[in-house]
Amino acid sequence: MSNKEIPYKIYLEEDEMPKAWYNLRADMKNKPAPLLNPATHQPMTAEELSVVFCEELVQQEIDDTTAFFEIPEEIRDFYKMYRPSPLVRAYCLEKALDTPAKIYYKFEGNNTSGSHKLNSAIAQAYYAKKQGLKGVTTETGAGQWGTALSMACSYFGLDCKVYMVKVSYEQKPFRREVMRTYGASVTPSPSMETEVGKKILAAHPGTTGSLGCAISEAVEKATQSEGYRYVLGSVLNQVLLHQSVIGLETKTALDKYGEKADIIIGCAGGGSNLGGLISPFMGQKIKGEADYRIIAVEPASCPSFTRGKYAYDFCDTGMVCPLSKMYTLGSDFIPAPNHAGGLRYHGMSSTLSQLYDDGLMEAVSVKQTDVFEAAEKFARIEGILPAPESAHAIKVAIDEALKCKENNEEKTIVFGLTGTGYFDMMAYEKFHDGKMENYIPTDEEINESLAKLPKMD
Amino acid sequence: MSNKEIPYKIYLEEDEMPKAWYNLRADMKNKPAPLLNPATHQPMTAEELSVVFCEELVQQEIDDTTAFFEIPEEIRDFYKMYRPSPLVRAYCLEKALDTPAKIYYKFEGNNTSGSHKLNSAIAQAYYAKKQGLKGVTTETGAGQWGTALSMACSYFGLDCKVYMVKVSYEQKPFRREVMRTYGASVTPSPSMETEVGKKILAAHPGTTGSLGCAISEAVEKATQSEGYRYVLGSVLNQVLLHQSVIGLETKTALDKYGEKADIIIGCAGGGSNLGGLISPFMGQKIKGEADYRIIAVEPASCPSFTRGKYAYDFCDTGMVCPLSKMYTLGSDFIPAPNHAGGLRYHGMSSTLSQLYDDGLMEAVSVKQTDVFEAAEKFARIEGILPAPESAHAIKVAIDEALKCKENNEEKTIVFGLTGTGYFDMMAYEKFHDGKMENYIPTDEEINESLAKLPKMD
Repeated sequence: MSNKEIPYKIYLEEDEMPKAWYNLRADMKNKPAPLLNPATHQPMTAEELSVVFCEELVQQEIDDTTAFFEIPEEIRDFYKMYRPSPLVRAYCLEKALDTPAKIYYKFEGNNTSGSHKLNSAIAQAYYAKKQGLKGVTTETGAGQWGTALSMACSYFGLDCKVYMVKVSYEQKPFRREVMRTYGASVTPSPSMETEVGKKILAAHPGTTGSLGCAISEAVEKATQSEGYRYVLGSVLNQVLLHQSVIGLETKTALDKYGEKADIIIGCAGGGSNLGGLISPFMGQKIKGEADYRIIAVEPASCPSFTRGKYAYDFCDTGMVCPLSKMYTLGSDFIPAPNHAGGLRYHGMSSTLSQLYDDGLMEAVSVKQTDVFEAAEKFARIEGILPAPESAHAIKVAIDEALKCKENNEEKTIVFGLTGTGYFDMMAYEKFHDGKMENYIPTDEEINESLAKLPKMD
Repeated sequence: MSNKEIPYKIYLEEDEMPKAWYNLRADMKNKPAPLLNPATHQPMTAEELSVVFCEELVQQEIDDTTAFFEIPEEIRDFYKMYRPSPLVRAYCLEKALDTPAKIYYKFEGNNTSGSHKLNSAIAQAYYAKKQGLKGVTTETGAGQWGTALSMACSYFGLDCKVYMVKVSYEQKPFRREVMRTYGASVTPSPSMETEVGKKILAAHPGTTGSLGCAISEAVEKATQSEGYRYVLGSVLNQVLLHQSVIGLETKTALDKYGEKADIIIGCAGGGSNLGGLISPFMGQKIKGEADYRIIAVEPASCPSFTRGKYAYDFCDTGMVCPLSKMYTLGSDFIPAPNHAGGLRYHGMSSTLSQLYDDGLMEAVSVKQTDVFEAAEKFARIEGILPAPESAHAIKVAIDEALKCKENNEEKTIVFGLTGTGYFDMMAYEKFHDGKMENYIPTDEEINESLAKLPKMD
């Protein structure tokens, strides 16, 4: 099929949307390492995990043999309100770059949460409701995950309690108001509502909080409240499972037009978007059915893959959560104030970590100013104003398209455009005013943090 | 075709998108009154209008006999980046209201400008480029139009100069940054850049500006600068012409599924969205091919249709623009600070005014707090966080759906959801905090302003 016949945006029909999530772990030869109990260093049992998470989500978390999980009809109905998301052929970008490469991006920003986070939020809210819970707790930094969860809980009539890092609560009042519009209660963290919050406030009066602290408060609240569980928007296997809808739709859309990706690119913080986007392609690659170059893009300020270590570590800075084997900079690593809040995480999904360790994917890190330069260029050419996180993938997609031009290669590049940047304009303002900095940690900083990794037997 | 077969979102194929704009005036029996020269009270000639507007746009402005204008390929290509917009079947809202009515909305918010304004911005930028101009000037209040024009100018490599009402410039820095991302220069108005700006600042030091003042500055800048013209995002016939894509797509989508609208609802400020949405339906109604109830919704704080007068008036408060015959509250009327900035205009499109005067459409006004109540309800049920402007239509659509429930009538309601409310969260915050007021002008206020209408021969 010739290029001319491929529309600017490929929308699948409703009946072409996935009816099951794909569990990539089922096809992995080397399975991701299990979560460990931080006290005993033994694999967490379903029973132990059920104190924190909903029961069905625990099953999804630990199951590494079932390849497909049927998407319940209620969730599929919700998906139909904002999905399928378009797979966009970036004709204008191709022309502007004068590249023989074909560029596609899967755009997940056309919903009120402004990102792909809603794909997992609605699933987690559904299972909480099904279990008869009253509500869920979570933390949020920049606010995309909190917004997505608020929307999902509102839909199923669940109570939603969000601990929002205090500095974001104050600097991003609009995000907070979106969550309130969906009926969520939003508490600046640290707060006086939890023991851990009180303790932190006593030790550090006037602290503006951190994601690690907000996680600790949300977990405490969930485990101490009757009928509540804790939910998380990234890193976990269950989240990658739900996010497989991104990759499944992408693959169906490409197949429909006889297109085959050569390079697949996604930004990576905890790994929810990248893990979802690549899942069906990586499955083929593992089974030897097709080959793809798969590239994870991370900020130079928080380079878990490119400069971290593959080891068991805590998922949170409070060290209360289970241990996960992952590429990590150490749970003690404090990422610099990069504007891509969603990529400011010390670790990485254990599934992606194993794939990277097995040499099945590449990783690159990029500087913040280069990312915003790419973001602005993209906005002007393709119309969409990207979130800083998404712009990491844009930067590398443009680089790869320019390499194709240099080598006169007609490759097909697919990248994930996770969301929009409407709530990130303060960062764009800094960029426009020439006040944006590049933070790159020193080897000493990283080594210091890695020295504190938990000692394993 | 049964309901079950209608998807949540109807997306047309690219080749089903309109190839020509529909000029409703060609089918109107009573044509809208022409613009008059404010000095001579004679109809403005094309030559006179060409000082301010691009030549082809002047032709579109005055032509009331040509039914279709071909959409140039360059504009159609741009449309393909963000159109077709979905016609959404509001299954969840229908269920929540427990109404036998079928509810559809045409959602124009899935683009970075966040509204339908881009449909005309790209057309106006195209003709400016085609005429070999260097750039265009405009004013913006809340910032949706300014953002749309910035995107359009960036695409065609035109300079874009936006005068932004000073109070918005300061209170909505994010909108300003979006425009800067697209390369526009944004000046707080009144400014020292124009004679009229200097004069106003001398008379009212410390003023926070007004839309009327910003229009005057933009017009002065355009007419005093070599290679510049002024462009406007609403009210004008040319704008309604471009916005006909909304209605044409809506009709094609309904026809495709064998659906027929009974009631069509849109919010009305200057009339750009409503005029575009209703155009093909109104054309049928005029020709007796089909009947529809068509409802314009305006804020109770700025009720041009429901409490204004049909008369010649100035389009701007500076009284430098041509006279237009329209439903007006008087160019001297200062609308209260309602949060739907896009509906805070003293007049109304002359086309819609004539249709309303001919009894071809209805109008209702609604209170601000009722609008936000509907907006929040809609956000929770349908997922999309609406702009305050759009929520006016939502409010009346819900009212009509509840009437259908009362009377057990299975009517089909179609309304225009013009855009998203991501940059309006301060208004939502006021609503959540119970601090939102309802402003309703007194008869004395309106009469005082109407007494100052220009005296016609």
